Amino acid sequence: MLAISSLPQLTQATAELTRVVEATDERGRVSLIAIPAERPLTVYLDKRELVTLMTMGGNPEALVLGYLRNQRLIRALDEIKAIQVDWEVSAAAVTTRHGVARLAERTAQRVVTTGCGQGTVFGGLMDEVDQIALPAEASLRQSALYRIIDAIRVQPSIYKQAGSVHGCALFSAAGELLYFVEDVGRHNAVDAIAGKMWLDGVEGGDKIFYTTGRLTSEMVIKGAQMGIPILLSRSGTTEMGHQVAQQLGMSLIARCTGRHFLLLTHPQRLVFELDEAGTPTTPALAPL
Amino acid sequence: MLAISSLPQLTQATAELTRVVEATDERGRVSLIAIPAERPLTVYLDKRELVTLMTMGGNPEALVLGYLRNQRLIRALDEIKAIQVDWEVSAAAVTTRHGVARLAERTAQRVVTTGCGQGTVFGGLMDEVDQIALPAEASLRQSALYRIIDAIRVQPSIYKQAGSVHGCALFSAAGELLYFVEDVGRHNAVDAIAGKMWLDGVEGGDKIFYTTGRLTSEMVIKGAQMGIPILLSRSGTTEMGHQVAQQLGMSLIARCTGRHFLLLTHPQRLVFELDEAGTPTTPALAPL
Repeated sequence: MLAISSLPQLTQATAELTRVVEATDERGRVSLIAIPAERPLTVYLDKRELVTLMTMGGNPEALVLGYLRNQRLIRALDEIKAIQVDWEVSAAAVTTRHGVARLAERTAQRVVTTGCGQGTVFGGLMDEVDQIALPAEASLRQSALYRIIDAIRVQPSIYKQAGSVHGCALFSAAGELLYFVEDVGRHNAVDAIAGKMWLDGVEGGDKIFYTTGRLTSEMVIKGAQMGIPILLSRSGTTEMGHQVAQQLGMSLIARCTGRHFLLLTHPQRLVFELDEAGTPTTPALAPL
Repeated sequence: MLAISSLPQLTQATAELTRVVEATDERGRVSLIAIPAERPLTVYLDKRELVTLMTMGGNPEALVLGYLRNQRLIRALDEIKAIQVDWEVSAAAVTTRHGVARLAERTAQRVVTTGCGQGTVFGGLMDEVDQIALPAEASLRQSALYRIIDAIRVQPSIYKQAGSVHGCALFSAAGELLYFVEDVGRHNAVDAIAGKMWLDGVEGGDKIFYTTGRLTSEMVIKGAQMGIPILLSRSGTTEMGHQVAQQLGMSLIARCTGRHFLLLTHPQRLVFELDEAGTPTTPALAPL
């Protein structure tokens, strides 16, 4: 754990997470519906403009912190003195204690190696990710997996209210919910969780990561950067996501809904709990 | 229409669109499932490395062309002499006739104004999009809207086979399917359609664009760049998508499934076809 004195100073900026708009349905009836808010947040790192993130705005300080962490621009929490978010000017001012070495060079390189707003943060990243060792002994019991699916099912969310957002969550191996973050982009949601983990001194090695989105290579790489050995999704995977997880020793569990799932990589991490007929011993859920 | 001589030379590179992997279900049963392919394609513009796109690989030449068009790096099709895709080396070599002015400067700027792999292509883009005039008289009949929803419903797709991809389509105002493209990223799918439109000399002013993904600001901006006045989605929208469409005079129609939809902006473009009881005159569909 970090000494309190080395924790960064953070604002606690708040924002409306939804907006109400008019909608006309197929019978010509007009009603009011909620849609997720989406606002630009321009990140200044030691007064240098770095990037503009489009965010719902629920966790801006943790988002900025996690973004810097997952882009590997900041290596340790105590490099950061303060993160000040001001929605009036749509800006997050990050102040480091000692500056960031070779910042111009390291951000310029990204133009070449990533698809801006399109592809993935890839390029040199895999070299570094290759050196991550996920704990070989980490495992998840089938009953705990169901506890996670059930927790997500009943979790109050912007998604249930307004749709059009992605949710990410961090769980203990026993299936206890630690963080739940939604944002208009799933990358923001996972970055905000990375930020919260840093702030609370939470390690990933004995944790389970859940996303409503697909298990793409970016999601797998970000999970590995946070040291998390098991990723769940209600959605599927893509070839690169599968391949990178295979290579890193990460277990991907896709299509998690109700009592169903598909274990795609490193199946040894899941501890099955089946009766003699091969049926899961955790009882089926009643419909919501 | 362009003279044949000014059309770029294109390869017709092909690739496997799915891969088969093992999956273990909740009863411990192992089966084989298809997942979408995902491969890097590094774009070289006049031998200069520009970007790496992660793509399923179905339409690489149109994707590269549409990417250059939607990023406004190329302003007219006849600037391009050839696009040569070679999967052996995961590369697309684009040769222009006269070079691209200020390429280094124009691609460097993107680091600042966009969220790489995260936010949106925004920044200076809105200034330019503001100058787009979408045809005020363009409209869509309710029966043609249902023809589009029905066409998507029965369209053979990688999504139905493997999940985890986004689909985009272009339709005539009568509801006739012109293009259907799927990719692991929805930006790739819309870019590939932009590329196909250029190659075939198809204008957007009297067309309808359909996406399985959300109507985000990026999707709205790309639609406007293609000159398309009406965007449909089976999903929802976000605040910025809504706001930009409102501003540009574009009609967004969200939540299109079966006979239901929600018309969110510029509702005057939809020609309702209702009987005296206020019920759509197009008959309801039988379940698939």
